Amino acid sequence: MAKAVYKFGAGEADGRTSQKALLGGKGANLAEMSTIGIPVPAGFTITTDICTQYVEEGEEKTFPKIKEEVEEGVHHIEEIMDKDFGDEEDPLLVSVRSGAAISMPGMMDTVLNLGLNDTTVKGLAKKSNNERFAWDSYRRFIQMFGDVVLGIEPKEGDHHDPFEEAIQEAKDEKGVENDTELDTEDLKKLVDRFKEITQEYAGQAFPTDPWEQLWDSIGAVFGSWDNPRAEKYRAMNGIPDDMGTAVNVQAMVYGNMGDNSATGVAFTRDAATGENRFNGEFLVNAQGEDVVAGVRTPQEINIVGSKRWADRNDITEEERKENYPSLEELMPEVYKKLDKVQQKLEEHYHDMQDLEFTIQDGRLWILQTRTGKRTGAAMLKMAIDMLDEGMIDKKTAIMRITPNKLDELLHPVFDKQAEADAEVMTKGLPASPGAATGKVVFFADDAEEWAEKGEEVILARVETSPEDVAGMNAANGIMTARGGMTSHAAVVARGMGKCCVAGAGEVEIDYHKRVMKINDYEINEGEWISLSGNTGAVIKDKVKTVDPEISGDFERIMELSDKFRKLGVRTNADTPEDAQKAIDFGATGIGLTRTEHMFFEGERIKAVREMILADDEEGRRKALDKLLPMQREDFEGIFKAMDGYPVTVRLLDPPLHEFVPHEEKNQKEMADELGVPVEEVKAKVESLKEINPMLGHRGCRLGNTYPEITEMQTRAILEAALNCKEDGIDAIPEIMVPLIGTKTELKLQKDVINEVAEELFEERGKKVDYKVGTMIEIPRAALTADEVAEEAEFFSFGTNDLTQMTFGYSRDDAGKFLDIYKEIGVLEHDPFQVLDQTGVGQLVEMGTKKGRQTRPKLKVGICGEHGGEPSSVKFCHKVGMNYVSCSPFRVPIARVAAAQAAVEDEE
Amino acid sequence: MAKAVYKFGAGEADGRTSQKALLGGKGANLAEMSTIGIPVPAGFTITTDICTQYVEEGEEKTFPKIKEEVEEGVHHIEEIMDKDFGDEEDPLLVSVRSGAAISMPGMMDTVLNLGLNDTTVKGLAKKSNNERFAWDSYRRFIQMFGDVVLGIEPKEGDHHDPFEEAIQEAKDEKGVENDTELDTEDLKKLVDRFKEITQEYAGQAFPTDPWEQLWDSIGAVFGSWDNPRAEKYRAMNGIPDDMGTAVNVQAMVYGNMGDNSATGVAFTRDAATGENRFNGEFLVNAQGEDVVAGVRTPQEINIVGSKRWADRNDITEEERKENYPSLEELMPEVYKKLDKVQQKLEEHYHDMQDLEFTIQDGRLWILQTRTGKRTGAAMLKMAIDMLDEGMIDKKTAIMRITPNKLDELLHPVFDKQAEADAEVMTKGLPASPGAATGKVVFFADDAEEWAEKGEEVILARVETSPEDVAGMNAANGIMTARGGMTSHAAVVARGMGKCCVAGAGEVEIDYHKRVMKINDYEINEGEWISLSGNTGAVIKDKVKTVDPEISGDFERIMELSDKFRKLGVRTNADTPEDAQKAIDFGATGIGLTRTEHMFFEGERIKAVREMILADDEEGRRKALDKLLPMQREDFEGIFKAMDGYPVTVRLLDPPLHEFVPHEEKNQKEMADELGVPVEEVKAKVESLKEINPMLGHRGCRLGNTYPEITEMQTRAILEAALNCKEDGIDAIPEIMVPLIGTKTELKLQKDVINEVAEELFEERGKKVDYKVGTMIEIPRAALTADEVAEEAEFFSFGTNDLTQMTFGYSRDDAGKFLDIYKEIGVLEHDPFQVLDQTGVGQLVEMGTKKGRQTRPKLKVGICGEHGGEPSSVKFCHKVGMNYVSCSPFRVPIARVAAAQAAVEDEE
Repeated sequence: MAKAVYKFGAGEADGRTSQKALLGGKGANLAEMSTIGIPVPAGFTITTDICTQYVEEGEEKTFPKIKEEVEEGVHHIEEIMDKDFGDEEDPLLVSVRSGAAISMPGMMDTVLNLGLNDTTVKGLAKKSNNERFAWDSYRRFIQMFGDVVLGIEPKEGDHHDPFEEAIQEAKDEKGVENDTELDTEDLKKLVDRFKEITQEYAGQAFPTDPWEQLWDSIGAVFGSWDNPRAEKYRAMNGIPDDMGTAVNVQAMVYGNMGDNSATGVAFTRDAATGENRFNGEFLVNAQGEDVVAGVRTPQEINIVGSKRWADRNDITEEERKENYPSLEELMPEVYKKLDKVQQKLEEHYHDMQDLEFTIQDGRLWILQTRTGKRTGAAMLKMAIDMLDEGMIDKKTAIMRITPNKLDELLHPVFDKQAEADAEVMTKGLPASPGAATGKVVFFADDAEEWAEKGEEVILARVETSPEDVAGMNAANGIMTARGGMTSHAAVVARGMGKCCVAGAGEVEIDYHKRVMKINDYEINEGEWISLSGNTGAVIKDKVKTVDPEISGDFERIMELSDKFRKLGVRTNADTPEDAQKAIDFGATGIGLTRTEHMFFEGERIKAVREMILADDEEGRRKALDKLLPMQREDFEGIFKAMDGYPVTVRLLDPPLHEFVPHEEKNQKEMADELGVPVEEVKAKVESLKEINPMLGHRGCRLGNTYPEITEMQTRAILEAALNCKEDGIDAIPEIMVPLIGTKTELKLQKDVINEVAEELFEERGKKVDYKVGTMIEIPRAALTADEVAEEAEFFSFGTNDLTQMTFGYSRDDAGKFLDIYKEIGVLEHDPFQVLDQTGVGQLVEMGTKKGRQTRPKLKVGICGEHGGEPSSVKFCHKVGMNYVSCSPFRVPIARVAAAQAAVEDEE
Repeated sequence: MAKAVYKFGAGEADGRTSQKALLGGKGANLAEMSTIGIPVPAGFTITTDICTQYVEEGEEKTFPKIKEEVEEGVHHIEEIMDKDFGDEEDPLLVSVRSGAAISMPGMMDTVLNLGLNDTTVKGLAKKSNNERFAWDSYRRFIQMFGDVVLGIEPKEGDHHDPFEEAIQEAKDEKGVENDTELDTEDLKKLVDRFKEITQEYAGQAFPTDPWEQLWDSIGAVFGSWDNPRAEKYRAMNGIPDDMGTAVNVQAMVYGNMGDNSATGVAFTRDAATGENRFNGEFLVNAQGEDVVAGVRTPQEINIVGSKRWADRNDITEEERKENYPSLEELMPEVYKKLDKVQQKLEEHYHDMQDLEFTIQDGRLWILQTRTGKRTGAAMLKMAIDMLDEGMIDKKTAIMRITPNKLDELLHPVFDKQAEADAEVMTKGLPASPGAATGKVVFFADDAEEWAEKGEEVILARVETSPEDVAGMNAANGIMTARGGMTSHAAVVARGMGKCCVAGAGEVEIDYHKRVMKINDYEINEGEWISLSGNTGAVIKDKVKTVDPEISGDFERIMELSDKFRKLGVRTNADTPEDAQKAIDFGATGIGLTRTEHMFFEGERIKAVREMILADDEEGRRKALDKLLPMQREDFEGIFKAMDGYPVTVRLLDPPLHEFVPHEEKNQKEMADELGVPVEEVKAKVESLKEINPMLGHRGCRLGNTYPEITEMQTRAILEAALNCKEDGIDAIPEIMVPLIGTKTELKLQKDVINEVAEELFEERGKKVDYKVGTMIEIPRAALTADEVAEEAEFFSFGTNDLTQMTFGYSRDDAGKFLDIYKEIGVLEHDPFQVLDQTGVGQLVEMGTKKGRQTRPKLKVGICGEHGGEPSSVKFCHKVGMNYVSCSPFRVPIARVAAAQAAVEDEE
């Protein structure tokens, strides 16, 4: 028979890291640590093969085959730990844990303190000099054994675990509230009660023989491989049923065996700053849970750290030495060993480690090591430092970046302490990152007015619309009561790099009284509130914010990324300011300029409304003529900012009703301004109403029914480009037709564009190169991309709308069920945030492929929200796009994600 | 060189029918007729190859090569027609026509009377004994030659054709209104003026030499191949540029050469009834246009027809013989020849022919023959008669049916005469066929009330909603001012087989005053109006309607179809009555029972609203418990009607806001009924509002957020099935989950359904077989059909919604641009009527294939509007569906279309 038991401990191990399939993840990891000389508590792993045999042949046939090897494994532990299993004086206690190659919920997890019984508990009490600890360990063992090995459950109709109920009874009897208030005698009684429960519920006595305890636990782990929850999980995740789990049996070690014992956690580098400085905390004579519980103040492990800590807390050096000495001072030898271990671990794993250690009777044991979590700043610094130290190579440095974490480095944040003290009134969606504080206003014009007067404001609305954009820009932050991560407020705020909390459903705004109610709070116009775009918190009063500092490490990672990435990174920008911001963040072009926002500014909206109200082409042309010089100016500014980079301008996209007022008062105003009866305005507004505006008269459907709009916009774009050329600016316009569903729609718009261009070039006697392409945002456009590409010189996937139509979800309404859908497992992510590669991605891939069948060099990009989402960016790389385009603040994220995609591709 | 000229005439021809590419459609057809001995005026065809040479090499190189052959062709005509080209006494005149293999607008079309000049016109005058005719022919020739050969156009800034202007001047001078009032002298002057115009506009004299006229015309036809309109048409329709057109030169014949001449049209069978009876009309000494103009009363060609005509018009036999003798009586020999010709034609073409003939000087000429148009009844009768006569086989008989025409046989129609006299106020869309007349009401409840009192009513609404269904059912017909062919009114009316005119945009309804304005008409509640669902006409007053009679031919065609078709045909039916109707029409199952209509009836809506208003699951369950017995009853009725056939029931689909009242008054009523404050109702209605309800909280999103609804419906379906079984009825329920976008959505609903089923079967101690499947109506469902099929036991393509989402068109709003889109060539058909095979069809095909990859025997059907549209049904056959499902009245259409698809497939 093949080897069934793999031993580890004392700097050696039978197994290797690579044997994950045989030893499970945990077993392989323990073997690895042991092999490189890390002092892990000794133990052994029973292989996954044995699990398979157990499931197939049953316990009776399997256990006899491995009996000898398991016994040998226990002896191996006894030897290294210098304790004997079942020994009355100093018993060896072990843990039994399952560990499959892939971590899997639903399986039996852990039994601790195995080996205790009425006799050994006394040895433990004596040895630890802590009778209460020994009995508490014992009662915990019985409870765990009952729960996970014997499968004790509440009886039918009862909802309480009988063990927990017994504890509650004990506390009630004594009149105390906490488990910790039960003393040794209470625990002894509980142990008796627990044994009774075991008999009553499991129909068998609690086994006192440690060997019986061990074999039962091993059997329970193997048996749990086939429990329904684990089976279901495997079925859902495509994990083979014959993979099996391993069992790990390992010596228990305790940090609460007296003043020569301790327990702690440590990091090989500073997880907050990234500084290359070993640091951590520990407690003498304590268990791991004491560190977490926070009853006692943990001490720093080394002198440097300890002194810093004392400084921060205004503690004198004397007091520190007296009350909070470091491990380095208390147990210098052990600390030295620990320091060596941490160095070894970082060298071995090539990354910052977060390790748990226990010192038992002056002997150091490492319980666990794992890659340490870190802040965005620390992530950058560690990657660059390790690269410079030669610990990792360039590709690894890039892969070390979690792209989304870069976001937090680019926006203001709350002062840590201030945030901790803040009074959170409610939470919405963290729609656009950063922190903001200001006086609340409820109308966009107020935001503008107040801001002009030098006030800091937060704009709070039920939801925002294009009319509010100027007010949003004037505010420090935006809050809405309705709408999801891709609502108007969220999208626009992200574009502006401005903090936004969206869809805070508990907020009720009374526009009339200019007040909002949030549960019991009442916030009037002008009162201070604060928003966290990172957590979604809506906070009462002013909270101090801190501006981010961008370190040199940031720039170095960006440069490194640019060397590797194959994807271009453009930006979505509607103004010269946004364009400039994006260039600063490294964008090399604009992938989407929306022209509709421009229609709302100042006087323009008047001309737009005049156009809408016009009865015929002539009337529309008159109004459009007024818009032309303004649009031209917009584009000139953007071309200037993007000198030498391509600028993709999307023709008018939203339905016309977005430009007309829906409130009586404003309709009256509009009527007065245009000199028409208010009835006419009302009738027009009514006639523009749509039941499903998302699927209505918009996009190229406007351009194809009112070609004069396309003519005006084309002229504005190309005149601007020609003007720029005259000023020595290299304008590269790309005209993008939105919402194409058929080739002909594009062809007709292209004809209009080309005609205007020819006319203009003749007028001016000069030309400028331009391209005509289209958004692919309607499923049919992707399905017929081979036809569409006959006309299109470039494609840009509008994955926001494509997601809406492929799923049949309205972004504005899906909030009602999306959260529930994530909860009940229908969706893993909000598909408006993370591109649905399975469904929508198929259309993206198909569209790209079919498009290039017709036009092999077709330039393909993406300009939906997904263009700045790392996993989606990687998908774009995979399908062979030329570029992604995202809001300015996500450009760095896209650059890194693109580089990671390229690196992953090479490997 | 290959042969350039193919002659025809006198029972012979150089060409064959199969040489369409070389001779063009017209040339091949003329050759064919000539070959079988039909007396067509002699002529010749210049091949398409010559056209290609002409385009490539130019006139100078091409014409010399064909000169001899063309001259020979002319001589061939001269010989047969016994006239000489350019002869002063009896000149041969010819027509020159283009004729490509595929008919193509934009090309030069026709020049008539070629060969006339100042000399030959006199010969024609003498020979015809009609000077005015000769000069009129001459001036027409010059005008046509100027227009089409010389390309004379209005000068810049002028909109009038100079020839037409000259005619107007001549009439003004004379003070007359009609062209016919110009006499010979006037025409002579006009000829002079036309020649001047030619000189002035074309810069050349009108060519008097017939040969020059001929060569110029041939050149003009060939040259027009490359004119921009023709080129654009070819580009748009994918017709190769090097295909070329042929030129047909053919002798002119005239029916106005005296009393021995005549002209007429004839049908080999009766186009109205299908009766096998040669019939037609003619006029002595007349031109074709005289027959059309209707100034003189045409006479019947044979005695039988003539007598029938006299009977109908109360004309005595004496008077008939005197004034309206038949051709059979007037020219018995010619008639005999004509009769032989018609027999030959029908035998040759195996179908009813519509032919044009001219008798010149006692000699019969056939100008054209084509397959004759016919009524639905005639179509059926002819197919069956010809099958019985052995003229065609079964497959051909099936192919002879235009499925959509069957519709007119199943609905009431207006009395012909009454319809002709009717006063049409406006036209809307012919949304559901048939004719209806009744007193107009504007509210659904009124329709019900009035109908109960025995009134005939028409329901007129701006648009209808599910609340109106009962009222629609009570009305004779439905008219809406808004909405397209797939609006609620249209879909529901078609389902009911009830006449509907939708989207009559000129109708303004004032609900308050209970009146509608249609242009200048004002129709008050209670006034009679009539609707034609075949033409879309909205008619003032009552118009007499006639019920259709279904002949035995109908049944025979249906039986024949059933023998050939592979597709099953089911029906969409929500009531036992509809189900029965569909069975009568030959449906073998229900493909779609919508359950939401049931929710509106009577007391039910109260319980539905109670459910909606409930705050928690418990409240909803209470209300659902009330609905359960009513739903169960619905299903029992349907199962009974469908005994032995499968019934697919779709779970609740529409968003909940469709069930709550939106008008203040009704909200108050609802509040009173449910005993809650009206504010609560308002708040709920407000909270249910959606910006894009089509993409909102509906379909399985309801079932997955409120599983108790699914539980109730499942229980109702299965309890009904069990009850039916006890009564000996074979209920076969198929439960269909709507609006699936992900596999998990279906899985979760299926779990709920299966749990209820298990529970119920245990309660009752009995089981019933049922299937669980899903609609495929969201693009993502089609894209991931392989995954969805893991859970689905059947698929039903909901192509209405699938079209909405694939195109991004809202059915309710697309009216604003769909018509324009058809006009400017973006769309060929309304995609909601005719399945878009290119785009939506790809998803249907993909969904079917992928679904069957996972589950090879997956049952696949369609239940959108397209399930009853012939070309879409054929597509469904092609992709291998198991069945189509359509409204009861379209079942026969689907049966024939399915048979045709199978026949086409075999061939």
